[in-house]
Amino acid sequence: AINGDRLWADIVATAGFGGTDKGGVTRLTLTEEDRQVRDWFIAECRSLGCTIEVDRIGNIFATYPGEDPSLPPIAVGSHLDTQPQGGRFDGILGVLAGVELIRTLKETATVLRHGLTVVNWTNEEGSRFSPAMMGSGVFSGASRLEAIEALIDRDGKTVLAALETIGYRGETAVGHVGFAAYVELHIEQGPLLEATATEIGIVTGVQGVRWFDVTITGTEAHAGSTPMAQRDDALVAASEIVLAVRDIARRHAPGVGTTGSAAVGPNSRNVVPGSVQLQIDMRHPFEAGLDQMQAALEQAIGAIDARVALSHIWSKQPVVFDPGIVDAVRASAATLGYSATEVVSGAGHDAAHIAGRCPTAMIFVPSKDGLSHNEAEYSSPEECARGADVLLQTVLQIDLK
Amino acid sequence: AINGDRLWADIVATAGFGGTDKGGVTRLTLTEEDRQVRDWFIAECRSLGCTIEVDRIGNIFATYPGEDPSLPPIAVGSHLDTQPQGGRFDGILGVLAGVELIRTLKETATVLRHGLTVVNWTNEEGSRFSPAMMGSGVFSGASRLEAIEALIDRDGKTVLAALETIGYRGETAVGHVGFAAYVELHIEQGPLLEATATEIGIVTGVQGVRWFDVTITGTEAHAGSTPMAQRDDALVAASEIVLAVRDIARRHAPGVGTTGSAAVGPNSRNVVPGSVQLQIDMRHPFEAGLDQMQAALEQAIGAIDARVALSHIWSKQPVVFDPGIVDAVRASAATLGYSATEVVSGAGHDAAHIAGRCPTAMIFVPSKDGLSHNEAEYSSPEECARGADVLLQTVLQIDLK
Ligand SMILES: NC(=O)NCCC(=O)O
Ligand SMILES: NC(=O)NCCC(=O)O
Repeated sequence: AINGDRLWADIVATAGFGGTDKGGVTRLTLTEEDRQVRDWFIAECRSLGCTIEVDRIGNIFATYPGEDPSLPPIAVGSHLDTQPQGGRFDGILGVLAGVELIRTLKETATVLRHGLTVVNWTNEEGSRFSPAMMGSGVFSGASRLEAIEALIDRDGKTVLAALETIGYRGETAVGHVGFAAYVELHIEQGPLLEATATEIGIVTGVQGVRWFDVTITGTEAHAGSTPMAQRDDALVAASEIVLAVRDIARRHAPGVGTTGSAAVGPNSRNVVPGSVQLQIDMRHPFEAGLDQMQAALEQAIGAIDARVALSHIWSKQPVVFDPGIVDAVRASAATLGYSATEVVSGAGHDAAHIAGRCPTAMIFVPSKDGLSHNEAEYSSPEECARGADVLLQTVLQIDLK
Repeated sequence: AINGDRLWADIVATAGFGGTDKGGVTRLTLTEEDRQVRDWFIAECRSLGCTIEVDRIGNIFATYPGEDPSLPPIAVGSHLDTQPQGGRFDGILGVLAGVELIRTLKETATVLRHGLTVVNWTNEEGSRFSPAMMGSGVFSGASRLEAIEALIDRDGKTVLAALETIGYRGETAVGHVGFAAYVELHIEQGPLLEATATEIGIVTGVQGVRWFDVTITGTEAHAGSTPMAQRDDALVAASEIVLAVRDIARRHAPGVGTTGSAAVGPNSRNVVPGSVQLQIDMRHPFEAGLDQMQAALEQAIGAIDARVALSHIWSKQPVVFDPGIVDAVRASAATLGYSATEVVSGAGHDAAHIAGRCPTAMIFVPSKDGLSHNEAEYSSPEECARGADVLLQTVLQIDLK
């Protein structure tokens, strides 16, 4: 079994890289804070005897050797970046659990047949550079390296320049290695496990995502002297769209729909708004559900009496994980005596990309109040340790086959 | 009659102080651009033989002497500041018309019984420092000087510091003079005159205004993994409020209601919004109408299932102008053969404050497409000249009494 206290100490220590006043973390991808936590991770893995590779998109691979160098390594991991004012667990739990697995193998002198690679994928969150799951997307072949390197943040800095600034544009070709399997431990980020008092989520897949940008053009006018009937108010139209997104999601359960961002111009109290930009996120476990939601969005926007431009900027199809690896997770939880239930991930994960390259599954642990992307995000030391124990058992089972 | 070409040349020249690429003006109060136009105004009036006074809140009074120094001056004027990306006419037309009146008196060697004072009121727009109509508000006694001096802009700079920076904290006590009358020429900023092909608006009063700030507190959560039924989405609640404001205004015609500004936190596509701040503007010609609108807003907010804090930050009661001055405007338009109609101003104006100090009325000229607080704001040279002619006739009539 892994050492839960040691894992928790790492969670507390790494929360210092970009830690906020309210106990959360702001560690956007490829920033100075990200560099610090990456350096920490590499130093820790080196001290355990791992070899380190960094690829051209900054993904880090720390490999602990196995008995048979001819076998491809088994991979575990997740991501070290966070949302702005995000939490202490989202992503980093899966990486730290990987480090804890290696420590456990080492101190028990356990030698696996396969090597064990702990991976940190670059820019899972998609906050600074869009899309999300960027490093695993390039690794899996879903995105082209050159296109991703040219993406810019709000300050106009490219991914390539950001990689070079923090010294994480590596030498290794992206997609250099095939894994025997990939298993990612992550917090649930939703309320289902807590609501059913279940210790472990056996993740059978990840729902699909579509991202849309909406631009509404109205006419700036005086808020006092422009009669209601003669207004072309971009914020009124935007509000109808926000509510339509909510209503469409309600009608397409278990789909979800969110307008996460809105920017109003000129944003002055006594001026009828002349422009609004909205950013929309829609998800559903089935592609057909996403098609229906998108069609409903297009119809709702068509029915609004305003100048609205909708653009579909990114998609990720729903993913079904490998039944063999899912079985290994189920069996591991059972062996350890933990209550477990099958779930489809509501959030996107690097595992959804890697599933296209090798047999893949995920393990969830509960999130207090279902909260994530929130500084109050919390999973207890016991919950985190249970997840790492299931991860270890799963790796051991895969290694036996 | 005034010289319309000369007036138009001044409008074109002064549009250079803070002129934008799209032919509008950004000349926020007490900025460098505001200093430039103030300096220009003072130099012009001095060259015509006016005495200049600047009071402690930066209001400028340029007085052309009359026959009888024992009589209080007649005042005309408006404001030189603009909205961000505002127009070339809002405010400055009334000040430039005053300058043109003095030029006309001077070149025709006409000496009035009363002095004629052209006033520039500080911060009519209320964009940089809230509330609007700030300088006239202190002059009329509606606001206390010390409280206004301490107001801050978004950068934390006080009104007092801004006045000192541009050298317009004058020596004259605020409210130092009583006027025989005040007449303000302004663009309509709405569509009524244009729609009825009427040349002159005889403004009988100004509708009342109430400003509200609304803070909605939601719970930040993951946009993918948080089921619709468990969300506490601040932007969804804000959208319901924006639509409620629109619906309340529609039900209380001729009242109007606008949500001009919205700020979302953390404003990231894949995070359910945790906070929204809204700025609301409601107006109605009758205080009872405003009471009903406010009650409806409170009820609508109470009915929304969200944590919402409403605060009423500013009010200006409806104002009815002096019947004698309104008659003088009506008679002047008739004498000049211009079509004219009575209107209640939808926009707020300095005249609404000054009406509490002396007999007051206003003159409107049409706005193309009813647009104002917009770079496309436009009134033709002929329309501006007609307004200035009615202003001159009105002053001559008042002077006779
Ligand atoms: N797991 C996670 O928070 N991913 C961020 C990308 C997304 O699903 O929106
Ligand atoms: N006339 C004008 O635009 N005033 C600004 C203040 C307001 O009415 O909102």
